[in-house]
Amino acid sequence: MDPDPSGEPSPEGRHHLGVDAGGTSTRAVVLAPDGRCLGHGRAGSGNPISSGPAHAGDSLHRAVSAALVAAGLSGATVVSTSVAMAGGSSVTDDSEAGAAIHGAVARAGVTTPVTMEQDLLALYFSGSPDPDGHSLVAGTGAAAVRVEGGEVVATCDGLGWLLGDDGSGFWIGQQVARAVGAALDGRSPDTALTALLLTALEVTDGPSDHHASAAAAAVPGGHQHEGPLRELVKRLYALPPVHLARFAPLAFEAADTGDAVAADIVERAGRALATTLGAVLRPEAGPHPVVLGGSVLVAQPAPRTAVRASLVAAGHTGEVIVVPDGLVGAAVLSLRRAGLAVDRSVFETVTTTLAALR
Amino acid sequence: MDPDPSGEPSPEGRHHLGVDAGGTSTRAVVLAPDGRCLGHGRAGSGNPISSGPAHAGDSLHRAVSAALVAAGLSGATVVSTSVAMAGGSSVTDDSEAGAAIHGAVARAGVTTPVTMEQDLLALYFSGSPDPDGHSLVAGTGAAAVRVEGGEVVATCDGLGWLLGDDGSGFWIGQQVARAVGAALDGRSPDTALTALLLTALEVTDGPSDHHASAAAAAVPGGHQHEGPLRELVKRLYALPPVHLARFAPLAFEAADTGDAVAADIVERAGRALATTLGAVLRPEAGPHPVVLGGSVLVAQPAPRTAVRASLVAAGHTGEVIVVPDGLVGAAVLSLRRAGLAVDRSVFETVTTTLAALR
Repeated sequence: MDPDPSGEPSPEGRHHLGVDAGGTSTRAVVLAPDGRCLGHGRAGSGNPISSGPAHAGDSLHRAVSAALVAAGLSGATVVSTSVAMAGGSSVTDDSEAGAAIHGAVARAGVTTPVTMEQDLLALYFSGSPDPDGHSLVAGTGAAAVRVEGGEVVATCDGLGWLLGDDGSGFWIGQQVARAVGAALDGRSPDTALTALLLTALEVTDGPSDHHASAAAAAVPGGHQHEGPLRELVKRLYALPPVHLARFAPLAFEAADTGDAVAADIVERAGRALATTLGAVLRPEAGPHPVVLGGSVLVAQPAPRTAVRASLVAAGHTGEVIVVPDGLVGAAVLSLRRAGLAVDRSVFETVTTTLAALR
Repeated sequence: MDPDPSGEPSPEGRHHLGVDAGGTSTRAVVLAPDGRCLGHGRAGSGNPISSGPAHAGDSLHRAVSAALVAAGLSGATVVSTSVAMAGGSSVTDDSEAGAAIHGAVARAGVTTPVTMEQDLLALYFSGSPDPDGHSLVAGTGAAAVRVEGGEVVATCDGLGWLLGDDGSGFWIGQQVARAVGAALDGRSPDTALTALLLTALEVTDGPSDHHASAAAAAVPGGHQHEGPLRELVKRLYALPPVHLARFAPLAFEAADTGDAVAADIVERAGRALATTLGAVLRPEAGPHPVVLGGSVLVAQPAPRTAVRASLVAAGHTGEVIVVPDGLVGAAVLSLRRAGLAVDRSVFETVTTTLAALR
């Protein structure tokens, strides 16, 4: 690939870069203008909020470099880069996070500008090339968007663990922890969640009379509990609150064995997610797709079923597509931001060639 | 008052000290062995967890010194001191908090040992001298205890804002904030709480189309909202989570005007508090009193009514007493810890003479 005399890459040497920077992992893909994915790379957390700008920048740099190496390309051939992350479109160039991201991409040899994208928009375009539609994510948090003309025009929830994220992994995990606390101190019925949560936290059984007063756990308010409850409370307050999301799978596990408390949590989560999607849904605008993502919707059938049922009830007639992450969408956005049309054929080229690389 | 040759205060010079160290204020009272309150003092927060050991120690020292000055007594005449606070019985002498508390009392000239007491036990003895009964507190947090033989034998809830405190000021305030968030992003019905909360936070109306994407608020997950919702979310995440308790009164205010969302929050809070008390209640043990305290139960009729109704339904036939704080109980405990019997007559001496001082 010879650059032309102006220093611009020749048309056949113009490449595009899509990056999906998540809290758990960062994925990057280099693609040709026709949608063929040429190289894929992967690294750790690329979220500057949860991991810090330095760590996120390092992950981005490693994922992008790996994708370029796999494609056998230099960063100088990249003409557009889309980086999708939570809060993406609000990460300004002059912020610390923005500087870390731009610096990481530049260090991989990419000299052209980077466009920050909302994670929910990339999630949407991971499922469909239709410029109009909706996406719903339920991972640690939960939110839905409506997309029109290729841009987000409405958002619902995503208000975070303290104020919203109804039906998210955090929400479910907190309901699990609260249900176990209530069961252990006698406020609510026994539940199979207790044994599952104590095992997950490696709390061994203490004295059976948890009502007796003893040393207080490290709980705000400092009330006295004993045995497993005391240990449970101490260990849970030692975690950052959002880490309660890791107990969400216990709700599905217990619900599958017929536990009523867990089944109620799962049912309420599904209803909450359906409500969040319903707030941005416009079935009257036509049979536009709904794209679902995030661990709660990808890994668990029950919330998916609840959301699908609510769509039927709302008169939605479009496709419902479940996607594992936002990488295809980040790739699609990098083409769109370069002014290239992404029709069904290009979209299928992206998805099939990326699937072959992963 | 001449000390006897051993250096011990003479019987008529033996005094007792009760301290109620709360998150908002610290109150101290000096009393005679017959229950007569001789001096009262008050200072700022005495909770070492929320205010830090140094500030809490300073408050304790000032409240105790003021009480001694008001009584015209030296700290050397004090033979027993009870300090009630959240998590009280778990504050060990060798902890930083314990050292601050003991040091503060010693600096006021008190040379005899200090006994740390649970706030819920002091609350109980603020309402009744009966060695058997129950208390329920709903302030920022919420918890209930059963008292037998003058000691706490069972505790329910008090698991803190993340895991429990159902029906507490925090719980109600968080429900208010979540309901407003859901109303503003279209997930749930309009509520009078929105205007009340935006006013309380001094958020002025932004663009009416809060669905449009703009810069993200400082919310975990970083999703995009605009106008009042964006500002609301930003301001609420800037507070320590427990500060949501300050919005609890809005629920009662809106419920009083017939707002259905607020009425539902108030009703669920009352039910939660009744459940917490119910878990430690033993109506079959006799007509023992129930003592209620904390701002939610003291200031708001609705949760009190709900709790009283639940007691009737449970077959409880004892008295229900509402107390403003734990100071009478701290005084009662300082007599009890010195081996003095506190019967109905002594108890009434404490309450009437303390009321005259405050």
